[in-house]
Amino acid sequence: MSTTPHPSTGAVSRVLARDLAALPDGSPAVLAGWVHRRRSLASVTFVIVRDRSGLAQVVVKDSDVLVGLANVPEETVVEVSGRVVHNPAAPGGAELVDPTIVPLTEPAAPPPVELWRPTFGAGLPTHLDHAAVTLRHPRHRAAWEVASASMRGFRSALTGLDFTEIATPKLVGTATESGANVFEVDYFGRPAYLAQSPQLYKQMLVGVFERVFEVGPVFRAEPHDTVRHLAQYTSLDAELGFIRDHRDVLAVLRAALAGMVEAVGTYAAEAASLLSLHLPQVPAKLPVIHFRDALALVGADPAEPDLSPAHERALSAWACTVHDSEFLAVEGFPMAKRPFYTAPEGYGRAGGAGSEPAPGQASNSFDVLFRGLELTTGGQRLHRPSDYRAALERAGQDPAPLAGYLAAFDHGMPPHGGFAIGLERWVARLNGAENVREVALFPRDLHRLLP
Amino acid sequence: MSTTPHPSTGAVSRVLARDLAALPDGSPAVLAGWVHRRRSLASVTFVIVRDRSGLAQVVVKDSDVLVGLANVPEETVVEVSGRVVHNPAAPGGAELVDPTIVPLTEPAAPPPVELWRPTFGAGLPTHLDHAAVTLRHPRHRAAWEVASASMRGFRSALTGLDFTEIATPKLVGTATESGANVFEVDYFGRPAYLAQSPQLYKQMLVGVFERVFEVGPVFRAEPHDTVRHLAQYTSLDAELGFIRDHRDVLAVLRAALAGMVEAVGTYAAEAASLLSLHLPQVPAKLPVIHFRDALALVGADPAEPDLSPAHERALSAWACTVHDSEFLAVEGFPMAKRPFYTAPEGYGRAGGAGSEPAPGQASNSFDVLFRGLELTTGGQRLHRPSDYRAALERAGQDPAPLAGYLAAFDHGMPPHGGFAIGLERWVARLNGAENVREVALFPRDLHRLLP
Repeated sequence: MSTTPHPSTGAVSRVLARDLAALPDGSPAVLAGWVHRRRSLASVTFVIVRDRSGLAQVVVKDSDVLVGLANVPEETVVEVSGRVVHNPAAPGGAELVDPTIVPLTEPAAPPPVELWRPTFGAGLPTHLDHAAVTLRHPRHRAAWEVASASMRGFRSALTGLDFTEIATPKLVGTATESGANVFEVDYFGRPAYLAQSPQLYKQMLVGVFERVFEVGPVFRAEPHDTVRHLAQYTSLDAELGFIRDHRDVLAVLRAALAGMVEAVGTYAAEAASLLSLHLPQVPAKLPVIHFRDALALVGADPAEPDLSPAHERALSAWACTVHDSEFLAVEGFPMAKRPFYTAPEGYGRAGGAGSEPAPGQASNSFDVLFRGLELTTGGQRLHRPSDYRAALERAGQDPAPLAGYLAAFDHGMPPHGGFAIGLERWVARLNGAENVREVALFPRDLHRLLP
Repeated sequence: MSTTPHPSTGAVSRVLARDLAALPDGSPAVLAGWVHRRRSLASVTFVIVRDRSGLAQVVVKDSDVLVGLANVPEETVVEVSGRVVHNPAAPGGAELVDPTIVPLTEPAAPPPVELWRPTFGAGLPTHLDHAAVTLRHPRHRAAWEVASASMRGFRSALTGLDFTEIATPKLVGTATESGANVFEVDYFGRPAYLAQSPQLYKQMLVGVFERVFEVGPVFRAEPHDTVRHLAQYTSLDAELGFIRDHRDVLAVLRAALAGMVEAVGTYAAEAASLLSLHLPQVPAKLPVIHFRDALALVGADPAEPDLSPAHERALSAWACTVHDSEFLAVEGFPMAKRPFYTAPEGYGRAGGAGSEPAPGQASNSFDVLFRGLELTTGGQRLHRPSDYRAALERAGQDPAPLAGYLAAFDHGMPPHGGFAIGLERWVARLNGAENVREVALFPRDLHRLLP
């Protein structure tokens, strides 16, 4: 066995672990990847090589090669040349024998936790502190593969519905939705803010493209340490014009969710299997309950302005039982708890917010619950310029910093609405993860800015 | 004609402008969109309605409806019910007659520039100040449709090559590549920075997924007002492991570019036609010239450390003539002008940066020129941990803030490399736009943070 790296000849091309068994018995093959595990028995050592496709077994019997294995500890990157032997006992049904093992870098330092163990043998802080290495654990990697497939499915569903992808500013002159929880940036000596959502921009762009979506980072200066919030997360945003009301938005959300579930099943099948994910059925139409009825159903005070976590869990359980659906849309949330651009109940295509809304006035907005938690918020927005000016006045918000946004309405905007799904929250729910940090790549929060 | 909005019945569904001619003569149809233009002749007025699919002509003869048109100025959002009549003189080959026109919002304020004129009749500052409205001009909208299709093609090419999409932190504890041109953020009372690129994260994630890509915002506090730079732009990033050298990276870049061009032709065909885009041929293999030979070719001093804009133009012209290619890769840029993670020439898979590089030592990095300008920078990176420590020492950079990044190399990283394409720069080149601001949605620069 050679223990010093040698220049590539480029002569033999590499085979992925998953394709090894497709080669004829006895044929030469080259694997490349990380030493996942070395397992020594009396007269043989198995070297498990991990590449992007999975694991492959290398059988080492030659004494020189066995001695050399001391210099290729776990995580060292190697190229292994050998002969293919089919063996039902090997992972994938084939293994490499009579190997030559060439390291492609220096011997790896011992990882903070043994990555070859089927379950990750350390707590969340260890994982997050060493993410560059611990993300290599097959279960962590699989969680992100589910996220990656979800993004793909989201886009695919929406482009199929004639949506245009947009890219909106993350540096904004004024807080997107409220002054709270916003990060301030030194913008060439002036203050600017990180966008809390693409909300205002996606609405303006409905005026251009009618149907838009964006998959991108949003920023919340969350001052609390919770298992559901991150300072940066990936938001799957959509917004569409020419709707009748928020029910048309729900129909698009339903299509997006179906696309995401389908993509996970198609493009992250192995990851889903490794994590034993139970993928939800997305019903042809999401069941809907009115906020008022939801409060009554869970026995809450009818004057409650929002759902508590316990209410969300109870409603989700109810939807599973009664509607056989893991998703439930709750519509008609009180205007009081919704942002200024929210359309009141009955707004429809006609618009006209009318007079001061009564206390508890319902809105054309919804939350979608999934497995006991809020997954998405969405709804219909105001579209008539006079409604915006009245709403801002009621909210006591200065319209001046929103001049560029209000211009879109002055110059003609259709009835429209949209929604946003938090990617990490979605994957956490699918994966049964308590904490969104378990499924983010390099999460950011109150305490964490590294790695 | 009704001049007050009415509640939707939802009974008749809308037809898009592009589908109007597919309906039988005389059939009822409902269009919905913006009043693009009203054009009055002696006894008839043509109302051109714009929707996401294009333009449709509505023929108004009824005197009541003609009078009502005063209340639906250009950009007002309307729903138009009428009968389809095929007419080769109408845009798309059909028009709507005997219309009922129902506004869905208040009469629109006059736009800052007439959006119906085929060319945009105002300068860039007017466009950018009023972007929410002026982006509706078909030429501006088309430019973004080209951008949107390009992103789709980039992703499609890379997922086809087994790349995993990632989402990396935009809030970082230390400047990505250098301390210059970085935006500082108040991160819960501590300083943080906006990521100038996903470089360090995409490298770490090669250690997890081997092949990764990201389409996302990057941030540069560019203190100069140039036509090529923005404070935020969309970066199309890719990085892959187990390469022989930077030539393998070039092959992937070539596939990405081909995917982008193909997607523009497929998904933004009308936009490309409206803008009279000449889509480039992407050669099966990008022509490559060594930096040293490039300097000689343009008659520059062999000690020059970089290409000037004039050199880039001359080299691009040369590639067109000699290689019949609008793309040209220049490889072997001097190490002195490249970031610390750059692999020197000859690094290959073996690695080993060796001793202090000689002045002018070439690197395994490249620029790709397209139509006279640099479009992409990429190359092979160092992968051996000892090479990183030596490179940082030579650069006089403190390794401590990079501890999380260096951990990836200590724990085994394969030979790897990657590239980044600036989306706005790509579209500007395709579209022959002088200034990248012409093709961004809401550009950010030294002076502009709004709308």
